[in-house]
This record gives sequence, structure tokens and C-alpha cells, in this order.
Amino acid sequence: MQKVDSFTYTVEPFDDDFTGRLSWGVLGKHVLACAENHAGARGFDRLEKDGHRYLWVLSRVVFEMDEWPRRGETYTISTWVRKYYRFFTDRCFDVANAEGHIIGRVFTIWAMIDSETRRPQALNELFGHTFDPYIEMERPCDIRPFSRIRVAQDAPAAMRQTYYSDIDENNHVNSIRYIEFILDAFPKNMYENREVCRIEMAYNSETYCDEMLQFFMEPAGEEDWHIVIKKGTGETVCHSAVTFKETETNNHKNITENGTD
Amino acid sequence: MQKVDSFTYTVEPFDDDFTGRLSWGVLGKHVLACAENHAGARGFDRLEKDGHRYLWVLSRVVFEMDEWPRRGETYTISTWVRKYYRFFTDRCFDVANAEGHIIGRVFTIWAMIDSETRRPQALNELFGHTFDPYIEMERPCDIRPFSRIRVAQDAPAAMRQTYYSDIDENNHVNSIRYIEFILDAFPKNMYENREVCRIEMAYNSETYCDEMLQFFMEPAGEEDWHIVIKKGTGETVCHSAVTFKETETNNHKNITENGTD
Repeated sequence: MQKVDSFTYTVEPFDDDFTGRLSWGVLGKHVLACAENHAGARGFDRLEKDGHRYLWVLSRVVFEMDEWPRRGETYTISTWVRKYYRFFTDRCFDVANAEGHIIGRVFTIWAMIDSETRRPQALNELFGHTFDPYIEMERPCDIRPFSRIRVAQDAPAAMRQTYYSDIDENNHVNSIRYIEFILDAFPKNMYENREVCRIEMAYNSETYCDEMLQFFMEPAGEEDWHIVIKKGTGETVCHSAVTFKETETNNHKNITENGTD
Repeated sequence: MQKVDSFTYTVEPFDDDFTGRLSWGVLGKHVLACAENHAGARGFDRLEKDGHRYLWVLSRVVFEMDEWPRRGETYTISTWVRKYYRFFTDRCFDVANAEGHIIGRVFTIWAMIDSETRRPQALNELFGHTFDPYIEMERPCDIRPFSRIRVAQDAPAAMRQTYYSDIDENNHVNSIRYIEFILDAFPKNMYENREVCRIEMAYNSETYCDEMLQFFMEPAGEEDWHIVIKKGTGETVCHSAVTFKETETNNHKNITENGTD
């Protein structure tokens, strides 16, 4: 079986944000769906063994997007497993535009947890050499490594409750939903002339329905922000780094008056 | 050109809610996308005339779902225009499962507004007889008419802020997003053994980013709820009626202990 699977999508009406760019939420959901479909086609999307049920959980993800597909345009997400080690596996993605030009890259680290104990399991014990035929080390996924994220700020910049529609089949807040929460913590006018070109997420603990999340944020350079989400108890939910850049004028829709060229 | 267009979708990973059923948010977004794609293919998705730009806005919608596609299953949404009159046009949809059996129906009423004044325009003046060849009156869309929605309750049951990710290309909160907000106003355990089988929405005024919405709710029968969303100013945003029913056991995933057969 081939090592890389590719999935082509169209930016349908309402897959975009108010500027007409594919939204981070839809991109993120498709990235997760590609991972699940790729693993499912090879029989390792989930595992039942000796009466235990095991699930993949996303431990870390970093996205870099050079440019964004816009409404009506197609894009193709390709994914493959690069490596596995004792408790984790690295999965890469690239995003190509309609012309086949790579416009984005995604690097993820996953763990497999026991659905009852929620503890990570040794992958070599669960799978033996099952992964070996699928490992693809040659295809590039050149992406700047994870940052060291620290937020000294001790007053939350925002608070937000979790609801039914945030919860996925694993009965916890969906990992991509935190990205939308974080983007929502910036003022909407930040997105008029700027766009988010890189997001890092490191997940620390799960949250459920009806929890109140606190967002601690601070700038970490010209265009970078570091964010930590915590529960009311002080427990850390995730760490994130978000990078903005100026939107190129030819990528604007109705917003041309502040263009840079 | 044919009168009815059909679009087939698959319930991708994370298109479902925590019970494994296609989520209302994804269904609603696809219904809007089908309307836009059907109108676009016939050249009446939007209009520019005499320096004015006109947009379709959804005035009312009622959805009835007899059963739900589940993750991995395909479903087909078909749409057609049933009628137009001075300021409004009626558009119908049906939803078929993979076997072609109709499992849902959607009835919508749309107005075309001037993008500047936000006022509805006389459709016969804008379009003349442009619609006539596309009117489909024979295909059934049998759906119980709109309810008279009244909520006497004057204390909000919930409050909720609007954010960047709620806003669509029309720069207002997306009409389907209110459905998710309303479903989120019920406790999550309502969805464990029950499902929402009918939703009505009547839209009264737009909301934008960073508004605080108030939800007034009361029961209107065994399985029916009436909901009114208002702004902090007291202005009404929309009226809604939501109907639950018991989920049939063979539609359950992991939740079988309270089944009814």
C-alpha cells in the first residue's frame, strides 16, 4: 500500500471566514479527518485488544500557511507517518493549491491512549512492526520546530465556556476548537489586514462540556503571541503560539485601502 | 437547465456530534452552500445593478429530520426554488440517505437586500421573469408550517458573546451559527437519549462581532421549546422553535442502556 494519501477539498460557501479565506477551523478539521482516513485505510485508526479500547490523541501540532485558498478554490491535503517511537508517532501533512504548489505544512505528534485510563500506551507493544511498511521519511515537511511557550501574565485576557457543539466523539472539547477559541480572543479587526500564518498547539489536558476556560496571552515578538489556556482550577489545558503577517494586497477581497503594494 | 440540483456529502470525521450523528451545524452549512451553488449555477446568487450590490438573506427556515446520517455515511441534499413573490422567495430542500430514501426536509424563505441600506428589494423589479424557468412546484416538500413563537419568560436562561469565528462574508453572525448557539443552551445530556428532529428559525435582525446575546427559553409542549434571542438593547435577533424526540436504539452508538426497544 502507498505511504501517502491525498484528499482534495473545495472551499465551499461558509468554509471561509469574513475575509473570504479558508477558515482555520475548517482546515484544522480536514487535517484531522485526513489523519483518521489515512490511518483507517491501513487499519490503525483505533485498536481493541485484550478488552481495552485505544484511541489516538493529538499531543502537538504546528501549522504553517504561506497563502490561503479562497472560496470556490480547491486544495489538496496529503498526509503520511514519518516516524514512531515508544509513546508517540510523528505525522506530516502538506497542503497544495489547485496548481499543485505547496502552500502549507502541518506537523503533528500523536499518542495512543487507553480509553479508560486515558494513559498513553507503548506503541511498539500495541502494534509490533505494523507501522514499518508505512513510514515515509523522504517527503519533506520543513517546518520551524516548536517554540518554548511561556506566559508570565497572570490575569486572563478572556474567559470562555465550553458547550455541546464543542464536544467531539471522544467526549471532550475537540482539539481544533481550541484554535478557534484562541483566534477569537484577538479583536476581529486584527484579521482585516493581517492573517495568521503559523499556529502551534501543545495539548496538556482534556476539557469537557460546561467548563470555563481562561486565556492568558502576551506578545512574544513583532508578530508573535503566546497563549496559555487554563481551567478555573489552574490546570493547564494547552499552550499555543500564534504568528500574524500582513496580508498581501492581491489576497484581499474587499479590503484594499491598507494594502502594501 | 434543470430545476433541481443535488449535492452528495459524506459525514467526515468531526462532521458529527459526540453521539456520532451528523451535526446540525454541518447540515445547516451544507444547506446554505447548496442554495448558493444552485443559485450561482443559474446566475442569481448575487446581483449588481445601477451601482448597487444585492445579497440574499435568509428570513426563515424550518428543518425536519426523521433520521440522521452517521459518520462515514453519505447523504444527498437536493434544492429547488418553489415560488417567488414581491419581496420573498421560497426555496425547498430534501435530504436523502445513501439508499435514496428521504430522511429530511428543509423549507426556507429568502429576501434580497441592498448591501448598503440592508432593505429588502422587490424581486420582480430586480429580476423580471428571470426565475420563471426555474420554478419547481411539483416536487413535494411536506413540512409542518411555522409555529407562532412566543416566550413570556423575561429572565435570560443563557448569555453568549459573538466572536470572529461566528462571522461570515456578510460581516454578520452566520444564520446557522444561531442554531448551534440555541442547541448549546440545552444541557448536553439532553442529547444522550434524545435528538432534535425539528428546528424553526425566524430571523429578525443581524448581529455582529462582540455582541452579547441573551437567550429566553420556555417549554411549549411535551417535546417543544420556544426560544427568543435578544441583544442587550432588547432588540430581537431571532425566534426559534426546537422539537426533541427519543432516539431510537438502533441509532445509538455507545448509549444503549436507556434504549426504548
